[in-house]
Amino acid sequence: MQNVAVIGYGVVGSGTVELFMKNRESISKKLGKDCDIKYILDLRDFPHSPFADRIIHDFDTILNDDEIEVVAEVVGGTTFAYDYTKRLLEKGKSVVTSNKALVAAKGAELLKIAQEHNCSYLFEASVGGGIPIIRPLCKCLAGNEIIKISGILNGTTNFILSKMIKDQLTFSDALKMAQTLGYAEADPTADIEGEDACRKICILGSLAYGKHIYPEYVHCSGITHITLDDIEYASNAGYVVKLIGSVAKLEDGRVSAIVCPRLVAKNNMLANVEDVYNAITVTGDGVGDVLFYGQGAGKLPTASAVVGDIIDCLRHKERPVAIGWEDCDNEKFVVNYKETSTAAYVRIKADDAENMKSALSEMFGKLMYIERSGRPENELAFITPVMKEADLASNLTILSHSAEIACKIRIYG
Amino acid sequence: MQNVAVIGYGVVGSGTVELFMKNRESISKKLGKDCDIKYILDLRDFPHSPFADRIIHDFDTILNDDEIEVVAEVVGGTTFAYDYTKRLLEKGKSVVTSNKALVAAKGAELLKIAQEHNCSYLFEASVGGGIPIIRPLCKCLAGNEIIKISGILNGTTNFILSKMIKDQLTFSDALKMAQTLGYAEADPTADIEGEDACRKICILGSLAYGKHIYPEYVHCSGITHITLDDIEYASNAGYVVKLIGSVAKLEDGRVSAIVCPRLVAKNNMLANVEDVYNAITVTGDGVGDVLFYGQGAGKLPTASAVVGDIIDCLRHKERPVAIGWEDCDNEKFVVNYKETSTAAYVRIKADDAENMKSALSEMFGKLMYIERSGRPENELAFITPVMKEADLASNLTILSHSAEIACKIRIYG
Repeated sequence: MQNVAVIGYGVVGSGTVELFMKNRESISKKLGKDCDIKYILDLRDFPHSPFADRIIHDFDTILNDDEIEVVAEVVGGTTFAYDYTKRLLEKGKSVVTSNKALVAAKGAELLKIAQEHNCSYLFEASVGGGIPIIRPLCKCLAGNEIIKISGILNGTTNFILSKMIKDQLTFSDALKMAQTLGYAEADPTADIEGEDACRKICILGSLAYGKHIYPEYVHCSGITHITLDDIEYASNAGYVVKLIGSVAKLEDGRVSAIVCPRLVAKNNMLANVEDVYNAITVTGDGVGDVLFYGQGAGKLPTASAVVGDIIDCLRHKERPVAIGWEDCDNEKFVVNYKETSTAAYVRIKADDAENMKSALSEMFGKLMYIERSGRPENELAFITPVMKEADLASNLTILSHSAEIACKIRIYG
Repeated sequence: MQNVAVIGYGVVGSGTVELFMKNRESISKKLGKDCDIKYILDLRDFPHSPFADRIIHDFDTILNDDEIEVVAEVVGGTTFAYDYTKRLLEKGKSVVTSNKALVAAKGAELLKIAQEHNCSYLFEASVGGGIPIIRPLCKCLAGNEIIKISGILNGTTNFILSKMIKDQLTFSDALKMAQTLGYAEADPTADIEGEDACRKICILGSLAYGKHIYPEYVHCSGITHITLDDIEYASNAGYVVKLIGSVAKLEDGRVSAIVCPRLVAKNNMLANVEDVYNAITVTGDGVGDVLFYGQGAGKLPTASAVVGDIIDCLRHKERPVAIGWEDCDNEKFVVNYKETSTAAYVRIKADDAENMKSALSEMFGKLMYIERSGRPENELAFITPVMKEADLASNLTILSHSAEIACKIRIYG
């Protein structure tokens, strides 16, 4: 018998138990050995759960039970989760998790502890929910130099943007709908400000480039400033607005990483990713572009990834799964986004907007102006050429003395 | 030093050597040990290749060299490849391959030999070229019961259909273009008749359901009968035509598998897969739908998968990678497609076509008729309700006495 414990009986935890127990027979067959969930650790009791008899409240029971080989940490956060994970790994117990905040903050340290204690720390569920991405990136694409990873990594913001694009809901109405449907939390900050997507792109970048990328070093902006006017201008120019996380290797060996809304051409596969779905494009020097698509969150999709990791740990218990990265000085490794280049969509407001065009051309170079029906005379929307972020920013600062910068969105690709 | 041999220096073989040698340094770093390609087996000499000194002509050199731990079989076919693979595995050397014909024909036997000799037989490159699909299916999705797998598995036919849809080329003109561009072979039968896609869906189904599905038991039809008229009718009804391979589990434990052109709704992700790209949708009871997309063929994309497998074998040499299935009696395991159900697009020709509508409704039930500009009076195109394949076939046989059945295409989904 191979025994597993689950820490946290919330949405992902209960999904993990449900899926594991539902498919326990076929999982045991795959492993060639019976397996079971022995403990579920939570502060609460669940007297009506079919697994009420497995609920415990004391972490040490798990830590000190030699029968427990694998633990699923699905409690979230970086306090208890960090302490528990560290102590379990130090005891040689493998830990699998959906906890992107912890992996993004402490991945290098925890992976090192796992390696030193001959066990595994796996986190397929931390990025893209149920979408297989961690293992494909590390294993299937191991023969490639990874040139770039870009993706729609947050289902909440993609739902909001989809509703704005398809149903012309305003940002705040779309957010309210997301909250009503349970896709957004009461405090939606981490989603709508891009922090959640940022953790995920840090994890993918760390895996692809072998060194820990910390969220604090990644420029991150959210979608709260996007209006229906911007959505319409974007559409008229052949684009949709998506929140994109990207990480890429530079020629000098450093990486650039950024999370921000972007105008994505309508014929790009990422443009067709709607509602709470996620999609990640990986570009390798051998494989070219590959795309992974599916439900990026939710009880059972996330549980699918957690259970997949549990099975992998049980299979490889005498030899840990080789996935990981080293710690590193991000000051030297992660380039400041201002050194990178981009084209951008800009919307400005100024009383003499029409008369500013020649000054704008002098400032930015050749601009592509976009129209929309009912465009006010005091509004201009245009797409700049590709330019250094630093130059773009300083141009916009200068421009802000004679016009209101109503919106700026980078172009994807 | 870890040594590898490559059998076959054609397109995939030369790509494998190129990618491996280009990224050898980082691969060695990932493995924590130097690695190299020691031999390249081919009948021909390649005096101008930078790797000319590694070319050999005698298979026994590889077989008898204890330094060779992993061999990439990229020679193709089922004669030499089968013999070589068997003998290598019997010697305990792991084999990785892009050879879908061999895996589909002899997978169960070769996987058993690998298991008995404590080595691996891996074939990520056999389906979807560089797209990670084999490992995600077996590992990441291991916690799921796989409900269904469907995909665009052949780049050549997808290119032809894309050219018919987008550029209104006829089938034969599109085929000629594919041949000119090197996407189709001089004898394109295996692609255009669906045989190549059939091998791939057999491999995916075998993996998902743990038992070998043989191509001979899978109903397979190609795209040679599709005309621009059908493409137009399909479009007017909201569909595009794609060659789809599918495998699904039935409630009684058997599987259904089929390869045929299908009408795919334009808002389905698969409808947006164009040119030589492939995409595979996997539906699991936990994860829902996940989709994998990328270049399904080509020198470096396929090499990407081969090299990924080589790295995995080198990593796990003391313990083989657990991927596989058992042999089984397909008479009992694979359901005859006539027992399954589908809706279908049908185009008929008959002098009194308009007068046949009430007879058609009696035969098929409620039909959805489709129009196209310039539809001849003697032509009707319609979509049937979902019905048993056997009933559909017998209805069409009866109908063929009073009308020409110009085209039949199943509906996807």
